Amino acid sequence: MNASIDVYKNVVEELIPFNKHLGFKLVDVKQDYASILIPFKPHLIGNPVKRSIHGGVIAAAMDTVGGVAGMTQFSSFEDTMATIDLRIDYLRYGQEKDIICEAKITKAGSKVIFTEMKAYHADEPDVIISEGKAVYSIRRKQAKVRE
Amino acid sequence: MNASIDVYKNVVEELIPFNKHLGFKLVDVKQDYASILIPFKPHLIGNPVKRSIHGGVIAAAMDTVGGVAGMTQFSSFEDTMATIDLRIDYLRYGQEKDIICEAKITKAGSKVIFTEMKAYHADEPDVIISEGKAVYSIRRKQAKVRE
Amino acid sequence: MNASIDVYKNVVEELIPFNKHLGFKLVDVKQDYASILIPFKPHLIGNPVKRSIHGGVIAAAMDTVGGVAGMTQFSSFEDTMATIDLRIDYLRYGQEKDIICEAKITKAGSKVIFTEMKAYHADEPDVIISEGKAVYSIRRKQAKVRE
Amino acid sequence: MNASIDVYKNVVEELIPFNKHLGFKLVDVKQDYASILIPFKPHLIGNPVKRSIHGGVIAAAMDTVGGVAGMTQFSSFEDTMATIDLRIDYLRYGQEKDIICEAKITKAGSKVIFTEMKAYHADEPDVIISEGKAVYSIRRKQAKVRE
Repeated sequence: MNASIDVYKNVVEELIPFNKHLGFKLVDVKQDYASILIPFKPHLIGNPVKRSIHGGVIAAAMDTVGGVAGMTQFSSFEDTMATIDLRIDYLRYGQEKDIICEAKITKAGSKVIFTEMKAYHADEPDVIISEGKAVYSIRRKQAKVRE
Repeated sequence: MNASIDVYKNVVEELIPFNKHLGFKLVDVKQDYASILIPFKPHLIGNPVKRSIHGGVIAAAMDTVGGVAGMTQFSSFEDTMATIDLRIDYLRYGQEKDIICEAKITKAGSKVIFTEMKAYHADEPDVIISEGKAVYSIRRKQAKVRE
Repeated sequence: MNASIDVYKNVVEELIPFNKHLGFKLVDVKQDYASILIPFKPHLIGNPVKRSIHGGVIAAAMDTVGGVAGMTQFSSFEDTMATIDLRIDYLRYGQEKDIICEAKITKAGSKVIFTEMKAYHADEPDVIISEGKAVYSIRRKQAKVRE
Repeated sequence: MNASIDVYKNVVEELIPFNKHLGFKLVDVKQDYASILIPFKPHLIGNPVKRSIHGGVIAAAMDTVGGVAGMTQFSSFEDTMATIDLRIDYLRYGQEKDIICEAKITKAGSKVIFTEMKAYHADEPDVIISEGKAVYSIRRKQAKVRE
């Protein structure tokens, strides 16, 4: 969908209450790709001993960013998406730092979109904290021309 | 672990910042089982058109409740756990209502614990909104006697 | 779909080459449910030291039996299905014995079907070896009346 | 583990009965990486109408190749591994052609190894048929020096 980044930014940061509540920020979006920032806040901690980020924060970010990547497949905002399933591997602890979560589409079918995600600390992009996969259903008002 | 429900309640509702932030309440815990309540709040919404709960809220609750079920395998709070992976199927939209999320252990090994979760509206326990699976690593200070 | 068990039996045991090659047998099928038998053969072993069944055999059986359960949603054999994703938890080793693999549908939507599976030794139905989940896309020639 | 490719080749192609039965061939192995070939045979077909490979063949190959990649973490063949879970996304149909399945380790911990896999037709390496993830438990006779 040929929309400006500001349109997506508004969706992620203002229109979706839970994203706004957690403070997610859109970093980038381009065809079949999106990235968001999870600004660190103490209430995002899941393990008070290790001071690590709650797995649910990562999960919420992955579901969100995969959805934004998926929206780049929309013809218009009349198209709709829903998460079918989400799977996350927790490779390392997320620390008390900002985290980036990226998604890219691996296959966009006429009815189903596959995405993969990764999360890393903003200051250490080469060390993956978590990896994810999600599948979304998409309802296109206008049929997809070629698959 | 032979701890009173109040001990677990304190862990879920007070000691884990993100759970406290989202308002999760422990409902029940017994050997190899736990359930929590997600009290509905408007900022938990993920889809502002359908007014449905964000998938990340469900994911956070599943990771949490699976972890509590897993803790019933602890010999003491010196044992530790970490989520290895989490997978969620989103069968139906979560509505603007309280949601219950339950977990049970399906296999507790010496180093790895398998759990399964389900989520449903508190007033409609027979209609599953989401199902989940998680695997946790467990570090036992005291070796498991038999597997 | 109102077909006799013999029709499904023919699909599983004769028409699908890989199932036939592995010797899978249909045990039962009813609305939203199916079960198959994996007769033990030495070439199904994956771990020659532990003499345990290859995880791929279980995976093939789960994909198969979930597909058969899904076919009970067909209006006719003009409907088609494809596996979107498959996830398996290996709780215990499968031994040198016959294994049963069951599937039931947890949600049948108009375009997507969710299933869950379990596998156990035929002589020990209460001890689960593996659990699985699969999501299938379904193309119905005739629209689903109500979801 | 500092073993020659022939050692791994023997494990994959001769010692594991199910791999031998399906005709899997080891293509390459290096630290934290492995690839295998699934030579096409008509009995590997899962969908007799579309003439596509059975999802269980891909699953078996992914479990196998992830295991071989994991074995490169062994100190000796006294170390052992077991699959904890396996997840596969089926992006496209596998056709009546040879398929390559690759695995790489994304995180090797002291007790758990995370891997990711992809499968593609041997003559079209850029078009991914299926993607997978697997987690393995590893029992090291000799403790891992650093994680």
